[in-house]
Amino acid sequence: MQALVYTANEQMTFREEPDAQVLGSGEALVEIEAVGICGSDMHAYLGHDPRRVPPLILGHEAAGKVLDGELSGKRVVINPLITCGHCNDCLDGRQNLCTKRDLIGMYRPGAFAKRVAIPERNLIEIPEGMDPVLAALTEPAATAIHAVNLSERSLARPISEAKALVIGGGSVGLFAALTLHHRGICDLVLADTNPLRRSSAQKTGVATVINPIDQTAPDSTFHLVVDAVGGKASRQAAVAAVVPGGVVTHIGLMDNDGGVDVRRLTLQEITFVGTYTYTPVDLRVTLEQLHAGALGPLDWIDERPLAEGGAAFEELHAGRCGAPKVILRP
Amino acid sequence: MQALVYTANEQMTFREEPDAQVLGSGEALVEIEAVGICGSDMHAYLGHDPRRVPPLILGHEAAGKVLDGELSGKRVVINPLITCGHCNDCLDGRQNLCTKRDLIGMYRPGAFAKRVAIPERNLIEIPEGMDPVLAALTEPAATAIHAVNLSERSLARPISEAKALVIGGGSVGLFAALTLHHRGICDLVLADTNPLRRSSAQKTGVATVINPIDQTAPDSTFHLVVDAVGGKASRQAAVAAVVPGGVVTHIGLMDNDGGVDVRRLTLQEITFVGTYTYTPVDLRVTLEQLHAGALGPLDWIDERPLAEGGAAFEELHAGRCGAPKVILRP
Repeated sequence: MQALVYTANEQMTFREEPDAQVLGSGEALVEIEAVGICGSDMHAYLGHDPRRVPPLILGHEAAGKVLDGELSGKRVVINPLITCGHCNDCLDGRQNLCTKRDLIGMYRPGAFAKRVAIPERNLIEIPEGMDPVLAALTEPAATAIHAVNLSERSLARPISEAKALVIGGGSVGLFAALTLHHRGICDLVLADTNPLRRSSAQKTGVATVINPIDQTAPDSTFHLVVDAVGGKASRQAAVAAVVPGGVVTHIGLMDNDGGVDVRRLTLQEITFVGTYTYTPVDLRVTLEQLHAGALGPLDWIDERPLAEGGAAFEELHAGRCGAPKVILRP
Repeated sequence: MQALVYTANEQMTFREEPDAQVLGSGEALVEIEAVGICGSDMHAYLGHDPRRVPPLILGHEAAGKVLDGELSGKRVVINPLITCGHCNDCLDGRQNLCTKRDLIGMYRPGAFAKRVAIPERNLIEIPEGMDPVLAALTEPAATAIHAVNLSERSLARPISEAKALVIGGGSVGLFAALTLHHRGICDLVLADTNPLRRSSAQKTGVATVINPIDQTAPDSTFHLVVDAVGGKASRQAAVAAVVPGGVVTHIGLMDNDGGVDVRRLTLQEITFVGTYTYTPVDLRVTLEQLHAGALGPLDWIDERPLAEGGAAFEELHAGRCGAPKVILRP
């Protein structure tokens, strides 16, 4: 089958690969119709993720058509997180914490390909008539919705009353902003250093968009700050910007070095929430919300053939791509 | 009046001072019967707290008898945190977040003295017949209870099911352990490097007590870790010891430098809760719980005359004092 393969640092090769193979009973083959490029795919491409070793087919934000098994013929979104199903976390609805979790496009082949193998229980049916390109947004949107869900638990007052800051206008940051808008937040600021991304965020109309290099978000102002970058500078800004008793939610994984003023967290009683991916229920709810239009028209997607995926990686790395999400179509 | 005055780094002087003066209407004078030495008083004594400038009467964990005003003659515990009463946080029951907050023994004279001046609304009546030495424990115990209350909000399952680790066996750490025991936690570990404190903690019988230098708490094991030290090493241990999806609660203020593995917080979806002091309701509830015996017999207190307070500071600094709390009596 044709696939876009991560072959070496900063090298994506579109080439013929052995066909996808199911790894056991209960797995199905899915023909990929649309698959997004994630920030974590970019990390891998740049050689920053020791868990993703080339040669590897990346890609885990996928929608497609089931080729065999019980759901044969159905159009589905893929839950790329494969968990054991038996541990306390899996049974308690927190499957994302399963210590045996696996992910397609990491230790097993991903969805930048004609076909992918995946357990059938990881398939979620797409509502009748929904565009697979929109359906492929389910995974990044669910990451944002899950983060907002966790944030809400730590806020003292209803989330609709909060002033909120989102740092980072990639797809997860933008979906966080769209989710906060959907939950009634009126006073919303989104910060990104990339002018193309700022322009995309601006068009959604849900947030005041700033360049944090020119214009610092005011200190001690926001009840909720979502850091969808996760670097030292963004964490520093996040911890400074939150009000006493507020919440900083940390989704990004750019680096692991500093930026957390623990004295401020303690004396100002701030809750710092680490958040990772989504649960199966988050994915189902997100798919419904995307279909219902709860997160806006989603007209900021950049759609390209899978064969041109290598160029998309180059553009994203160079900051020349304004779209918060590039979707590839095999 | 006689007072124990912080006169210079590592110098506490018992001497005659001008009498306490009320600072406005609505304030009363309280004759101090018992006042505890707090970790933050130790920080000041060592010159580590720029907010506490000598010469200053320290001390804010106090119980005594009201000398004038509406409550004249009543025996009370002092809420040392003076807040504006008008901001959203004050009105919403989160007075500890008030940006105008003041504290006795910091910007205004404290309770290591015969008398202290304090707003009447900061006085809480002591239950009939309660020993003022026990009542003076209300402030540190409320700090622990408040921290456990915040922790509980972020735990996925009931707190009584949690495995918990408390780092630090000073009064706040020990009260955290006693509170967790009171809330039904069976699997509780307390870590302290000081053998005298370990011995005091051991006697309460509520926790397995370890020396973290000899015996590391096992990684990724505890649903809740309370860091009542707040140094780089304790934070590192706390973040390593917590399970995926668990909670690290940070009360201590030893230093502000590193120890937070943000990558682990994010990938393992850990919530890091900063917690500061208590609310007025926390203090009232704590006083009732101390009186009811909910936190055990509290027979680990060291009681001394205020005149000998200087020696107590020296012993505490040298690690020669095994009691988690020294109470001074003017």
